[in-house]
Amino acid sequence: MNNVCISSPRLFLESLFHSAIDAAKPEDCVRLSLPPRPAGRTIVIGAGKAAASMARGLEQSWEYPLSGLVITRYGYGAPTSRIEVTEAAHPVPDQAGLDATRRILELISGLSKDDLVVCLISGGGSALLNLPLPGITLEEKQLVNKGLLSSGASIAEMNCVRRHLSQVKGGRLAAACHPAKVVTLLISDIPGDAPVDIASGPTVGDSTTCEDALEIIERYQITMPESVHYVLKTGLGESIKPDDPRLSGNELRMIAAPAMSLRAAATLAERNGVNAYILGDRWEGESRDVGKVMAGITFQAAAQGEPFKLPCVLLSGGETTVTVRSNGRGGRNVEFLLSLALALNGVPSVYALAGDTDGVDGMEEIAGAYIDPTTLKRAWAKAMPPMQHIANNDAHTFFETLGDSIVTGPTLTNVNDFRAVLITHATEV
Amino acid sequence: MNNVCISSPRLFLESLFHSAIDAAKPEDCVRLSLPPRPAGRTIVIGAGKAAASMARGLEQSWEYPLSGLVITRYGYGAPTSRIEVTEAAHPVPDQAGLDATRRILELISGLSKDDLVVCLISGGGSALLNLPLPGITLEEKQLVNKGLLSSGASIAEMNCVRRHLSQVKGGRLAAACHPAKVVTLLISDIPGDAPVDIASGPTVGDSTTCEDALEIIERYQITMPESVHYVLKTGLGESIKPDDPRLSGNELRMIAAPAMSLRAAATLAERNGVNAYILGDRWEGESRDVGKVMAGITFQAAAQGEPFKLPCVLLSGGETTVTVRSNGRGGRNVEFLLSLALALNGVPSVYALAGDTDGVDGMEEIAGAYIDPTTLKRAWAKAMPPMQHIANNDAHTFFETLGDSIVTGPTLTNVNDFRAVLITHATEV
Repeated sequence: MNNVCISSPRLFLESLFHSAIDAAKPEDCVRLSLPPRPAGRTIVIGAGKAAASMARGLEQSWEYPLSGLVITRYGYGAPTSRIEVTEAAHPVPDQAGLDATRRILELISGLSKDDLVVCLISGGGSALLNLPLPGITLEEKQLVNKGLLSSGASIAEMNCVRRHLSQVKGGRLAAACHPAKVVTLLISDIPGDAPVDIASGPTVGDSTTCEDALEIIERYQITMPESVHYVLKTGLGESIKPDDPRLSGNELRMIAAPAMSLRAAATLAERNGVNAYILGDRWEGESRDVGKVMAGITFQAAAQGEPFKLPCVLLSGGETTVTVRSNGRGGRNVEFLLSLALALNGVPSVYALAGDTDGVDGMEEIAGAYIDPTTLKRAWAKAMPPMQHIANNDAHTFFETLGDSIVTGPTLTNVNDFRAVLITHATEV
Repeated sequence: MNNVCISSPRLFLESLFHSAIDAAKPEDCVRLSLPPRPAGRTIVIGAGKAAASMARGLEQSWEYPLSGLVITRYGYGAPTSRIEVTEAAHPVPDQAGLDATRRILELISGLSKDDLVVCLISGGGSALLNLPLPGITLEEKQLVNKGLLSSGASIAEMNCVRRHLSQVKGGRLAAACHPAKVVTLLISDIPGDAPVDIASGPTVGDSTTCEDALEIIERYQITMPESVHYVLKTGLGESIKPDDPRLSGNELRMIAAPAMSLRAAATLAERNGVNAYILGDRWEGESRDVGKVMAGITFQAAAQGEPFKLPCVLLSGGETTVTVRSNGRGGRNVEFLLSLALALNGVPSVYALAGDTDGVDGMEEIAGAYIDPTTLKRAWAKAMPPMQHIANNDAHTFFETLGDSIVTGPTLTNVNDFRAVLITHATEV
């Protein structure tokens, strides 16, 4: 086993976390994925929380003429010189988003086959790049949206409906660029990384139909305004199919995703002599319960050296959730960690780090935290009962007091959670 | 991949479940673990939910004279001819348990070094084999117990306190057998299988002290009757230490445990050409969240064939929990499965079975259930919205209607939950 891992598990785990974040830095990722210069014009469009920093990365490396407009969330802007950045509301769309979406449609109208559209898509883009079909008001669309959110429908089902009520989603944005070539650069923050689901796939062919959307609305008994019923029933809302000739020649490039960040961390770990196992890039579930399951897997590995070869680091990503029960300072990654520490109860060979790759776990500018075999003991010594802090959703206070918070500052990207559990050697548990 | 697994995933998974249960059958396990006949007398004692069937297995294979008394839970008796079986209350102790414990202490008094005591210990034994130290009333002990249960203290911490207030726990029962040799046969139903924690370790040396017990009581601010304070403060409650000469020559034999049952299932799977990975024998957490994490691991394996080689079965044990929100017919294993099915949403290569090894998941005589890629589709076709059934804690109704319940009948053993997820081939998820 390499010295870094033995002598400073914390340094080792922090370096894995940083490698995961670095692998998802929008500016760098965009730079490495640019298409060749077209014979005609270059137009840059896009939407999402990372849209501004993606735009910045692009315009800095693109030596040729370009123009464009991207939409990001209020407060997520970044200084650009050639690509305009407009801010709008997320997650509930506002007029600013609608106006900017209209301007984007104008920007890409009348292009020639020599022109290139680079489309920058990241999480949050669905609300920001948003224009209901003619005849449907924003209010009507939001009514359907609200109904979907409280119905128990899956994200994929919700997006299927959304793609059939929009002037831009479900491949329509790309079709509107025709005959120009469209290269879409994607940053995924969703489980499974399906391009059709990132920002509802404005440049991606959609194999679902109006009929599917109707069936979902009926299955979940969602209130459906007459206008929505009409566009679905008549097929006016039909999305662009994957084999549509207007999409041929286009390209989708996933430039950052949870799996890619976990892979970067795994590579760094292996380079340091630690076996790395990626247990999934789309874990979901209540944070404290995910912590308990992680402990169950860790016990097995630490006691048996099975099914994972020691020393090892177990990596996972995704987006856990916290049911808020109290008004403490918490976040899903630190709550996961505190639960893990409680369940492990000081197993002498286990260290872990968990953090949000956007640098903000919960509401504060703390990315995550770190636990080691002494965490609980040190907490009791400071008169902090760990079970009380987890009951109060107060894990940030807990780890801050221990000096074990991990602070990165805003990273301007987001590939969701990063969890790493290091098991240095076999031990009784 | 073997045909059994391809042609009937359900049959394959059921055979794994049965092999796990068979590996924990008290009668068989006892038979295979008997000590040699002593020069002197043979006395059989014990307590736990499996005590009667363990006693039956023993007396059927033991051709020599013996006598004895074991305590089991009301309704858990089994017909025996030579070993008396007494029933008592669990989980809250009653007078019947106290009286039987006193009679066991009489039975083992005045033995010689040529005598053999076989002690049969299984889950539930702590409440059944129970006699407070002189000066502490049952009510006082229960007051401390109740305080512990609601304090957030861990099982290990609760047991530490219990072992210092008892005439039988913490090795005292074995010390009372001295100078006879004591062979303890253990069936574990607790995370980690620590013998000192199974039924509070009546025959196991205990390295914790009265001081530790006091610290726990004070740390969790548990109401402490004067009598309890006195026995802990004066050291009257001190348990028997692991190096106590009265325990030397004794033996502990773990004859059934979650890990052994999972191992049996893994062996059978491998014999059928399916790679088996045991992810832990002591998973805990809210069932529906454990299901989501299992889905996260399954997505990774199904999409990447990593870190598990396909075809594979992912095995885990332990005891998940259900926070009851409604009055449906549920259990922790079926709720896990329904959550898993919802998260997987029909991934075409994944099949799973989960069940309680005691044959009773929740309140009914249904051990568990089975899911396959068509589960959700078949449910919708029968007008059963799966999310409604999980919201109502009504998974037994759900699987019964689909014909996918697994019924074993009472197995008379318990090594907790059994979960198996079969992934037959790589697939997009």
